[in-house]
Amino acid sequence: MSSEKPTLFTCVSPALLHLYDLKNTVVVVIDVFRATSTIASVLHQGAKEIIPVDTVPGAIEISEKIGGIAAGERDGKIADGLSHGNSPLEYPRSFIEGETLVLTTTNGTKLLHMALNNGAESIITGSFPNLSAVCKYLIESGKNVVLGCAGWKDRFNLEDTLFAGAVASRIKEHFTIHCDSTLAAQLLYEQHKSDLIGFAPNITHYHRLVARFGLIEDIRFCLTEDCAPVLPYYTNGKLIAK
Amino acid sequence: MSSEKPTLFTCVSPALLHLYDLKNTVVVVIDVFRATSTIASVLHQGAKEIIPVDTVPGAIEISEKIGGIAAGERDGKIADGLSHGNSPLEYPRSFIEGETLVLTTTNGTKLLHMALNNGAESIITGSFPNLSAVCKYLIESGKNVVLGCAGWKDRFNLEDTLFAGAVASRIKEHFTIHCDSTLAAQLLYEQHKSDLIGFAPNITHYHRLVARFGLIEDIRFCLTEDCAPVLPYYTNGKLIAK
Repeated sequence: MSSEKPTLFTCVSPALLHLYDLKNTVVVVIDVFRATSTIASVLHQGAKEIIPVDTVPGAIEISEKIGGIAAGERDGKIADGLSHGNSPLEYPRSFIEGETLVLTTTNGTKLLHMALNNGAESIITGSFPNLSAVCKYLIESGKNVVLGCAGWKDRFNLEDTLFAGAVASRIKEHFTIHCDSTLAAQLLYEQHKSDLIGFAPNITHYHRLVARFGLIEDIRFCLTEDCAPVLPYYTNGKLIAK
Repeated sequence: MSSEKPTLFTCVSPALLHLYDLKNTVVVVIDVFRATSTIASVLHQGAKEIIPVDTVPGAIEISEKIGGIAAGERDGKIADGLSHGNSPLEYPRSFIEGETLVLTTTNGTKLLHMALNNGAESIITGSFPNLSAVCKYLIESGKNVVLGCAGWKDRFNLEDTLFAGAVASRIKEHFTIHCDSTLAAQLLYEQHKSDLIGFAPNITHYHRLVARFGLIEDIRFCLTEDCAPVLPYYTNGKLIAK
């Protein structure tokens, strides 16, 4: 019976996360451009773990203490004081294998900590590069799900919504869904899934990344399904490949 | 030049309104099911004015003082203590002409007061029944615009987003639009505009109104473009037909 299925909601902004009950719930943190795509890429390239941190000084302090690599961005570019940024293509296996990345980003790491502080039972990160791994985990866990879009400075964004739509589109039969944002996300994804890269220039953040910083290859990577098939799972303050 | 055009943003929840600069801006309060559809209908049927009020006791007190009709809903049905609700079909000309309606609703009246308190230059209300009047005013005013969706208890909802999409779709050439929620709204509206009433059963609030309260005729009215062609304009604490 449909009433026995777990629920699935999509939260389109961190500023709305308090509206959702996160108890006994898996929260999928979604920051397609680019934090959660980079997280998938880095773990897929063999990093030992990623420590998400809220501030740049915090990232520097922790990385110095544990011998990790401090990395992150503010407003789409490498944050002042850091030598590594938030590009999924910046971390080849030869550089990152076995290493600990200490990562701070504008939207994604903030949402992850909000989910934690709001009592989420478990937290994973999602992006097109690890879409299938996320869907498989959500079906198998059998728990309620909140797809949490990191957005852009608390505003709705399209790329995170499209990913939420991709997940909902694939796993909807396993969940009870009474949620307009999930349906909207699904409709938008289904409308554009055949050419996400062609659709990308319509997205606000595309222009920030491509026109200002020339990051077209990042965009391609971030919109390619299952190119980093790994499940980043948050435990004891760290994201590890589950 | 496009940079000289006024801006247009869509705010998908009252809880995100603080992210938008409302100075020198027209805010369109959108609560399709049903406050702003009812407002258009009531003014089109010849009501003198509508006083939006936050609370039921407030609506009763003001209506008694001025000899108006206290009306409103909570959670989709007539609020306890009121004899009139939030249905656009509840106010025929024979009943409402020349009268003052004192209206309190779950989402729409709250958003209107938030827009006021956040410094909006002017406030109008929008719904499919007065779509063309809204578009005409926004083009002629030449001001920046925020399309404010009332949502449902601060959550994103489809019907308000669809209306924002209808407006954006019609007037986009007159504005500079760098806003993912506006684009999403437009895409959703364009996907479903040929049969909004057929699409309605997908919307969460449809089920609240139809399954629980049998309000299918309300839904039809609320999704019919330009059936109440009037522009509700907020001034001196009242909505009047401009």
